Amino acid sequence: MELQKILEDRSQKAWEIYLPNLSIDCVVFGFNNNTLKVLLLKMKNSTHWGVPGGYILKDENINQAANRILRDRTGAESIYLQQFRVFSDLNRSEGFFEDYPDGIWNKQRFLSIGFYALVNYSDVNIKLDEFSDACEWKSINDLPEFMMDHRAIFDKALIRLRKQLNDKPIGYNLLPEKFTMPELQKLYETILGKKLNRGNFYRKILRYDILQKLDESRKGGAHKAPDLYQFDIEKYKKALEQGLNNGW
Amino acid sequence: MELQKILEDRSQKAWEIYLPNLSIDCVVFGFNNNTLKVLLLKMKNSTHWGVPGGYILKDENINQAANRILRDRTGAESIYLQQFRVFSDLNRSEGFFEDYPDGIWNKQRFLSIGFYALVNYSDVNIKLDEFSDACEWKSINDLPEFMMDHRAIFDKALIRLRKQLNDKPIGYNLLPEKFTMPELQKLYETILGKKLNRGNFYRKILRYDILQKLDESRKGGAHKAPDLYQFDIEKYKKALEQGLNNGW
Repeated sequence: MELQKILEDRSQKAWEIYLPNLSIDCVVFGFNNNTLKVLLLKMKNSTHWGVPGGYILKDENINQAANRILRDRTGAESIYLQQFRVFSDLNRSEGFFEDYPDGIWNKQRFLSIGFYALVNYSDVNIKLDEFSDACEWKSINDLPEFMMDHRAIFDKALIRLRKQLNDKPIGYNLLPEKFTMPELQKLYETILGKKLNRGNFYRKILRYDILQKLDESRKGGAHKAPDLYQFDIEKYKKALEQGLNNGW
Repeated sequence: MELQKILEDRSQKAWEIYLPNLSIDCVVFGFNNNTLKVLLLKMKNSTHWGVPGGYILKDENINQAANRILRDRTGAESIYLQQFRVFSDLNRSEGFFEDYPDGIWNKQRFLSIGFYALVNYSDVNIKLDEFSDACEWKSINDLPEFMMDHRAIFDKALIRLRKQLNDKPIGYNLLPEKFTMPELQKLYETILGKKLNRGNFYRKILRYDILQKLDESRKGGAHKAPDLYQFDIEKYKKALEQGLNNGW
């Protein structure tokens, strides 16, 4: 079915069940092969890509809405999901649908609430919806052209994710259960887009007191087998709630 | 005029000019007599206090809306104003107006976009609106009871303001043009709600390279006259945009 017909069919129902003028856009980060990736989809009839999004049911709050939207798209549960900014510029969305009939749901002005999510790459089963003809993980170092203001939404999400490294622990959703210090450092370096000094990284991350050193080491390889660590989940969760106390 | 009559009179116009289901609430901080204060208003017929708020015109973005709302309330221009969170719980607002007629603007479900502002205390001329019978600066250490979820909005704004101290310069809107190091330290201590080590504070704040030491000192007092400083506005603005690079 062509896109306009789908949108027209869905329009009346959408007006009934969703809050008008509001959307949610989710910037979904995953970590794989030492690369930070973002989940993007390509709408039918378009060469541009966007982040997965949706609307807010009249009887749900925005966290419920964002979780529902991501679950429908990725199949993943208990995702780390954080609102970070409202995008409200005039004409950020309407222009995209200007050739469509008036009164169609998608043609309204939308203010979009941006969320970012950190997901376990291997938990995700991407689901295409009927508006899209592709949904793929893209490396943040090799991004396609974005539709509407989705490039700005992505950029702001990455800035927020980088800031979060100064305040909150990270890695639980992104690394396997057991990992080495070089793997954890690589995750930080990948998110930050820069190299970190090894000694400083070790000192700082150990001072946060969120890691457990295991009585195992990574087998194989020519060098001394590196120690394995896992997160102390109680301490990790406490640090997520209370922050890492890095500041004044 | 009683409150219900006012709200009914305003309702039709509100439906015409504002985006439905959305409000803006502004947590306005000021610094005076070494105390951090917040601007609160008391609605008619209520003993509870709230932060100043308003709605978004159909043809403005949220920053324009927040600036307009604050300008109307405080008369202050070029306020530091930052969105920080959307408050979207079900029944966060409707219950407050449950005795009012259906269809009235205020009785809808509102998702509120929280902003916080830092204002020059002496620039502010508080204006009462017709819904309120008091609008006052309250010390954050001696807060009254709040209406709806405004206590949560205030709490989240204060947390965000504290976090901002780790990432952005602060003080330009809160201190007089020329100030001493102990005055700047006192501002940080007041916002953080804790004492800071003098030597550490000096080292850290000077490392940010946003201060200019003046060839003047504060006259009067028994002790050695303390040096006066002012912000280097170019560097301050650059640090506001780019962050203080405190992290990894």
